[in-house]
Amino acid sequence: MELLRIFKIGGHVINEPAYLDMFLKDFSLIPGKKIIVHGGGKIANEISAKLGIKPIIVEGRRITDTPSLHVITMVYGGLLNKLIVGKLNGMEQKSIGLTGADAILYPGKKRPTGEIDYGHVADLESSEVNTSFISQLIELGMIPVLSPVTADLDGNLLNINADTVAATIASSLSSTYKTELILCFEKQGVMEDPDKSTSVIREIHTSMIQTLIESNIIRDGMIPKVQNARDAIRKGVSKVVICKSSEIQQLITSELSTGTTIYA
Amino acid sequence: MELLRIFKIGGHVINEPAYLDMFLKDFSLIPGKKIIVHGGGKIANEISAKLGIKPIIVEGRRITDTPSLHVITMVYGGLLNKLIVGKLNGMEQKSIGLTGADAILYPGKKRPTGEIDYGHVADLESSEVNTSFISQLIELGMIPVLSPVTADLDGNLLNINADTVAATIASSLSSTYKTELILCFEKQGVMEDPDKSTSVIREIHTSMIQTLIESNIIRDGMIPKVQNARDAIRKGVSKVVICKSSEIQQLITSELSTGTTIYA
Repeated sequence: MELLRIFKIGGHVINEPAYLDMFLKDFSLIPGKKIIVHGGGKIANEISAKLGIKPIIVEGRRITDTPSLHVITMVYGGLLNKLIVGKLNGMEQKSIGLTGADAILYPGKKRPTGEIDYGHVADLESSEVNTSFISQLIELGMIPVLSPVTADLDGNLLNINADTVAATIASSLSSTYKTELILCFEKQGVMEDPDKSTSVIREIHTSMIQTLIESNIIRDGMIPKVQNARDAIRKGVSKVVICKSSEIQQLITSELSTGTTIYA
Repeated sequence: MELLRIFKIGGHVINEPAYLDMFLKDFSLIPGKKIIVHGGGKIANEISAKLGIKPIIVEGRRITDTPSLHVITMVYGGLLNKLIVGKLNGMEQKSIGLTGADAILYPGKKRPTGEIDYGHVADLESSEVNTSFISQLIELGMIPVLSPVTADLDGNLLNINADTVAATIASSLSSTYKTELILCFEKQGVMEDPDKSTSVIREIHTSMIQTLIESNIIRDGMIPKVQNARDAIRKGVSKVVICKSSEIQQLITSELSTGTTIYA
């Protein structure tokens, strides 16, 4: 099967136009079939604040009410998505920006209300992804640029976690392509010592993950990232790379010289 | 050639959620191949005002500066576009929301700076439209939902007039389909007496337009609408209907029972 790389970007790459430009330039040099999934960043919070929309936090969890959903749809589905698409097209990387609502690409279901009602937040199922249309776009030579916004089948817009979009898309396409999921963030990867960039663990077999969590080597915000990576691999993704967004160009020359690779 | 209808909506249909719902329900009942082009509406002005972005008017013309462009991209390219797509999908009208930047669908050129620099505003060329990709989407059974935002080939986002998008798309696709352009607005059509809904002129041959303008029957805001219609027909569109957005369902039963039809 042919290789398809799914890159997830968020946080500081999105917040700093200069970082985004650098990332997209590096990304443009990576040959082959590829997808970008982007998250949000602080701009949505800034715009919400200016519009007088107060974040609703219940038991430490952010609730997506209707005004917040509208800001997310504007900023993630509109501004950020089209800025990325425009820049890529300007580098002759033919791109198409989509949400999960478009062509019912990755329809969501509102997260069931348990102890907390998260509001307009979606869960995704990889079986619901419109893989045939995404494949058609890729085979037409396009780069899908996917945003963390979707709708349910009744047409109600919903917010989704961008890591979830990336992992779900990667899993669902693993029957058509050899999929690699590249999670780009601020740090070099999973590090034994967070202050020492040379302490990156280059390879983690999925069977080692639980031990590394228990021994506190995988910790804090890295835990859900690595657990998502393991889930993606269980659902057919060939490998997951967690790496610094400014080091993706190293993916071309050597598979293992950047970040942490999680494999089955 | 097969019929393709291009509907342009804006203004009050966009401003009032109830009108939009009614329009989309009527639209869903119209069989065959179709496209929606949507304009903006007052929500972008409201959001700009809340964000403290002041409209820049030079000699009566609105200038699109960068903050305004970002609001337009958020509201038109994001929120409105995805609200429409979600609602249509919820009615089993499979839709895909796009700007002109996506898949370089209808790339713009920044309007040349003459006496006035309009800022980030695009002119379009129908020869530049990616008709093959739009046709592919239509042949896949999808309804393209197009927003008045695009980018130039260097990747800079630009604002475009929605009437221009609709007319350009309709002209460019007229070599593949028999295209009809339906311009939906608040009034019944071109009326001899603006206060008398029974005074709608049902048919206007393009050769009559200049006379009707000179005799003040076509006047005010209707003049550019009718002139654009004539240009579209000259560029291959089979006919243009100017009608009330709540009366489009009449298009199905009788070609001439709604609005004003302009024909060659």
